[in-house]
Amino acid sequence: MATARPLLPLLLLAAGRLRAAERSGGGGGSSSAMEELATEKEAEESHRQDSVSLLTFILLLTLTILTIWLFKHRRVRFLHETGLAMIYGLIVGVILRYGTPSTSGHDKPFSCSQEDRPFTTLLVNVSGKFFEYTLKGEISPGKIHNVEQNDMLRKVTFDPEVFFNILLPPIIFHAGYSLKKRHFFRNLGSILAYAFLGTAVSCFIIGNLMYGVVKLMKLVGQLSDKFYYTDCLLFGAIISATDPVTVLAIFNELHADVDLYALLFGESVLNDAVAIVLSSSIVAYQPTGENTHAFDAAAFFKSVGVFLGIFSGSFMMGAVTGVVTALVTKFTKLHCFPLLETALFFLMSWSTFLLAEACGFTGVVAVLFCGITQAHYTYNNLSVESRSRTKQLFEVLHFLAENFIFSYMGLALFTFQKHIFSPVFIIGAFIAIFLGRAAHIYPLSFLLNLGRRHKISWNFQHMMMFSGLRGAMAFALAIRDTATYSHQMMFSTTLLIVFFTVWIVGGGTTPMLSWLNIRVGDRVPSVEEMSESRWLYFRVGVDPDQDPPPTNDSFQVLQGDGPDSERRNRTKQESAWLFRLWYSFDHNYLKPILTHSGPPLTTTLPSWCGLVAHCLTSPQVYDNQEQLREEDSDFILNDGDLTVTYGDTTITANGSSGPHTATTSLDGRRTKSSSEEALERDLGAADHEVTTRGTRLVFPLEDNA
Amino acid sequence: MATARPLLPLLLLAAGRLRAAERSGGGGGSSSAMEELATEKEAEESHRQDSVSLLTFILLLTLTILTIWLFKHRRVRFLHETGLAMIYGLIVGVILRYGTPSTSGHDKPFSCSQEDRPFTTLLVNVSGKFFEYTLKGEISPGKIHNVEQNDMLRKVTFDPEVFFNILLPPIIFHAGYSLKKRHFFRNLGSILAYAFLGTAVSCFIIGNLMYGVVKLMKLVGQLSDKFYYTDCLLFGAIISATDPVTVLAIFNELHADVDLYALLFGESVLNDAVAIVLSSSIVAYQPTGENTHAFDAAAFFKSVGVFLGIFSGSFMMGAVTGVVTALVTKFTKLHCFPLLETALFFLMSWSTFLLAEACGFTGVVAVLFCGITQAHYTYNNLSVESRSRTKQLFEVLHFLAENFIFSYMGLALFTFQKHIFSPVFIIGAFIAIFLGRAAHIYPLSFLLNLGRRHKISWNFQHMMMFSGLRGAMAFALAIRDTATYSHQMMFSTTLLIVFFTVWIVGGGTTPMLSWLNIRVGDRVPSVEEMSESRWLYFRVGVDPDQDPPPTNDSFQVLQGDGPDSERRNRTKQESAWLFRLWYSFDHNYLKPILTHSGPPLTTTLPSWCGLVAHCLTSPQVYDNQEQLREEDSDFILNDGDLTVTYGDTTITANGSSGPHTATTSLDGRRTKSSSEEALERDLGAADHEVTTRGTRLVFPLEDNA
Repeated sequence: MATARPLLPLLLLAAGRLRAAERSGGGGGSSSAMEELATEKEAEESHRQDSVSLLTFILLLTLTILTIWLFKHRRVRFLHETGLAMIYGLIVGVILRYGTPSTSGHDKPFSCSQEDRPFTTLLVNVSGKFFEYTLKGEISPGKIHNVEQNDMLRKVTFDPEVFFNILLPPIIFHAGYSLKKRHFFRNLGSILAYAFLGTAVSCFIIGNLMYGVVKLMKLVGQLSDKFYYTDCLLFGAIISATDPVTVLAIFNELHADVDLYALLFGESVLNDAVAIVLSSSIVAYQPTGENTHAFDAAAFFKSVGVFLGIFSGSFMMGAVTGVVTALVTKFTKLHCFPLLETALFFLMSWSTFLLAEACGFTGVVAVLFCGITQAHYTYNNLSVESRSRTKQLFEVLHFLAENFIFSYMGLALFTFQKHIFSPVFIIGAFIAIFLGRAAHIYPLSFLLNLGRRHKISWNFQHMMMFSGLRGAMAFALAIRDTATYSHQMMFSTTLLIVFFTVWIVGGGTTPMLSWLNIRVGDRVPSVEEMSESRWLYFRVGVDPDQDPPPTNDSFQVLQGDGPDSERRNRTKQESAWLFRLWYSFDHNYLKPILTHSGPPLTTTLPSWCGLVAHCLTSPQVYDNQEQLREEDSDFILNDGDLTVTYGDTTITANGSSGPHTATTSLDGRRTKSSSEEALERDLGAADHEVTTRGTRLVFPLEDNA
Repeated sequence: MATARPLLPLLLLAAGRLRAAERSGGGGGSSSAMEELATEKEAEESHRQDSVSLLTFILLLTLTILTIWLFKHRRVRFLHETGLAMIYGLIVGVILRYGTPSTSGHDKPFSCSQEDRPFTTLLVNVSGKFFEYTLKGEISPGKIHNVEQNDMLRKVTFDPEVFFNILLPPIIFHAGYSLKKRHFFRNLGSILAYAFLGTAVSCFIIGNLMYGVVKLMKLVGQLSDKFYYTDCLLFGAIISATDPVTVLAIFNELHADVDLYALLFGESVLNDAVAIVLSSSIVAYQPTGENTHAFDAAAFFKSVGVFLGIFSGSFMMGAVTGVVTALVTKFTKLHCFPLLETALFFLMSWSTFLLAEACGFTGVVAVLFCGITQAHYTYNNLSVESRSRTKQLFEVLHFLAENFIFSYMGLALFTFQKHIFSPVFIIGAFIAIFLGRAAHIYPLSFLLNLGRRHKISWNFQHMMMFSGLRGAMAFALAIRDTATYSHQMMFSTTLLIVFFTVWIVGGGTTPMLSWLNIRVGDRVPSVEEMSESRWLYFRVGVDPDQDPPPTNDSFQVLQGDGPDSERRNRTKQESAWLFRLWYSFDHNYLKPILTHSGPPLTTTLPSWCGLVAHCLTSPQVYDNQEQLREEDSDFILNDGDLTVTYGDTTITANGSSGPHTATTSLDGRRTKSSSEEALERDLGAADHEVTTRGTRLVFPLEDNA
């Protein structure tokens, strides 16, 4: 269990220095001066090594950044930045493993018997002086020699929980915060189905297949320790967390179909949450009595309960902090001070994580839903300055954390000390994830297509099948527990699966897109254009959705596949009644309460709530319609007058730069805004917008065709 | 030595969960299941408490932010945000101290004798299982009972080195990065004198006075343990680190005199560095032989050597990483991808810290010089987007870190377990810092005034005397080592001094300014204006100096205290020859090598370096003069043609918004650019600018007069 290493070099930079300072400052006579000096030297040495190990990672990331730039500059698309980070990690891992001296003498373990269960704090009497020690974890007796391993290897080995508590939250929050809301909500039903049902199906299929593989291994004598059914299920949960970051990056660059993008992104974001909670539930499945690891109905239902409890609890936590932030930013004039606003936003989002952890829920999941809530409500209340600040802040954090995790993965292949590579298990796992993904995508798509009018085409299904990469989340889940034989084997296998999928699938995305005839929009902009359009894009801070322009739709529109009203009708029928219900509730009550947008509450709430409605409604809603349009760029639809503020203004072909508002009056209908109508217009807006912006240059590119 | 607590809740959130996962995943039969479950529960409990304690701090910061907003909104200026943070910290500290149950039983220390010196890692055999412990530090025998203290109090107690390694670096980096370059360099000589000589003088005077106080205490029997002369000197070094953040915030708000601002800010930034290195040197002063703590020439010179070595080493480290970043950003087209650029900038700046620590220098000092270098060179190479991103990123980090430290200070007054408040010592310390500050400011100002043409007036001297607040740095230095009786007393006293100075001096700044008749510029803008002018200011990303507008100068100009050329002459004479030498070197060689600005190297370098010069000179320098003006807004002076790009464009009174370039040809002189002339124009530029921007509204405000 030597991975239970408490080395958070980042943080324990502290501990090293501390001791040095303590001793040098202590000065209790010169009797034990020599001894103190020795300890001090040691502490300093340790601190130095911590610094060096962190420097290694920074060097890695710097190299990665420079190479990414080179790749972007030369438009190399066969290798994604994460794949690159892994390669650099691998190289450094090899160097550390084979290039540094193997052991250092001064860390010999000291054994001392204790009768009771272990204490958290230990006082040790060393020749009359007391030293304080803290518990770091259990070491299995067979692995004691591992403690005396290469010093440098130990230094670069992070506590696995660092991933969960420090690196994943910004990644997940950013995913939620940058969710393309419009297309996400348009496909909400399908996304939820893929994320919940799909992940569960995938988990159980992979779990069962792997159990078969394990049985086989036992038969041929390839298994040297226990491997339970629950372990297999856990593996299924771990490996069901997809992370198509590579694919999505390429989609974004090529402006591929927005609906496909929304399906893939939405699924991957939510399925991370499902996978985390699923794995917790499986861990919680502990049958009572003697026959452990057999089926136990009570324990099973307990697990289901745990799943529901953790998931809904985390969801609530995330939503609540998001709502509180929205209310605070709405009812204070904090937007006059963007620094304060940004700091508050950051603190509140972080507190979600801590709150959820303090209540026993899952912080990472809570952070995801907090991100979505913040994007949906709070974002509208922020000043323009804070919008770009928060986006940029989390973008940088996300970027650093993600690349760090991927380069750490590369490193771990060589520096992790307890790899168990079993060829049978690995081959079985590859087949299992393939089958699991297939059993997840195709049947579900078939069922969903029964209900959808805008069908998910075969090409899309194949692309989703293909995009089932595994990434940071699978790694973080697998490294979390590498205590037993089975878990170590699972970890090694997961690592290989991540490598394989990121490199092969990531590199194959562009050919696959053209092979499947999936339309990609716009010609690929050159680097110079990128710097002027895509990045200006972020700079102006008015694109709430960060959408790739809806090229596919526009393509159809330009081809003239139907009049505008018919299209809107179709869209209307596509949205399920449940979603429509939620939408009208959100539009009529939540948005007006939490933001400065939407219809005044005084018109939507029953008249007996008059006073409350008046207090909660922002004065801007009444008298500042013009300002409203600028503040909420999420396709605000004012009463009877459709004004579309389109975020993607910098790529408009008429050459106008700077924010540009296309104002259109739709059909001249000036009835009172019913939520139904608002929804309809909201969903149809993008398509309509495209027709009004007909000057747009669109020539779809079949990349290699 | 119980402060040596390894509780980095932020980070050790990790450790708690880890153990839980380990055990629950382990599943080695059900024999020790109950025992495991108990440990797991405990670990979960600990993890939860960590989350709660961090939540406490986040709540504190959130409250502080909201109150700051309220204060800014109502223009309350008698209490600064840092003072506020301390008050909230105090309140929470009282609640934690007196409102929570005192001890919890399960952390009883376990003693076990070891013969040798302590190991870093400890393996403990608990009923057949091995647990790993790591060394946390020594506990003095008398203090063993402290280990069994209130759980919650322990959780909110951070490892003191967290301040040095995590919280101070962003604060210090931000200080360096946001240094008002122009006024800083104009007053460089005085600033260096105040920082180096002044801090040394202050340290020795305070140290000696305190030694007198200690002798007195020994006489009247108020001293219960040893207190050496070196301890007194250390106290002098600790308490010599001034931190006029409160005063500067008010200066900024009131647009007080820029030269005074530059003197105060520059002094405080550099004197932090001096104080850190000074305290390290004093700690390194360990006389050999039996008569410790007496004067030893060898040890003294060793200390001086340590001071020089650490200081110059840290300076070099900072400068080198800054230069490397500048070169990388100059010679790659990274500026097309602001995200990559920002990430690189962040990583390189962080690596300075680690590099310095790894080499045995002081990271915090290195970070300061890295910040200055980055601001002076790299900043010019960044894209407009990255300029604002990096500024904003470090601004947020700085804000959070600073307020965290100050609220922690408030907390520490009640939660720190080993306060020793000695009235005599405290009163002595207050008198000593007063005298130390006086002996530092007045004589030095007198000497400096002999050389300066633009004298430091008595009013300014009084204001500098008054602004000697102590803040985060003094606290971090004092809490770093609280192992002995003397250090504990020093820590408690430092805490009180910080409280007193931040509250009283911070609150008294505005009255003091008006009492001393120090001109403050511009009327105070209203909140609405602030949001439109001051914040836009940061938004456009073109103000390299973040100057308060040079109101004082303009005031004089408007009063007509001399023609423009005379003013320039005066400025010219003020700058010392050493500075002029450096300036010409910087202007002719460093700037052209490291940035896209300055004269082409082919003209400044001797002709035999032709090839090298050609390679190093950016093509932009030759053919892109127009772009140059926009990219380097640090008063770029092209050959023979004075073009002033003035950063402060948003407050121009002619109402033009957006970047606005004032182009002026000075005297029509079109000679070859000599560095002398460039310097002269550079320094004179601001004043000149003001006259050309004569439409500016300036009505100086004597606040209460």
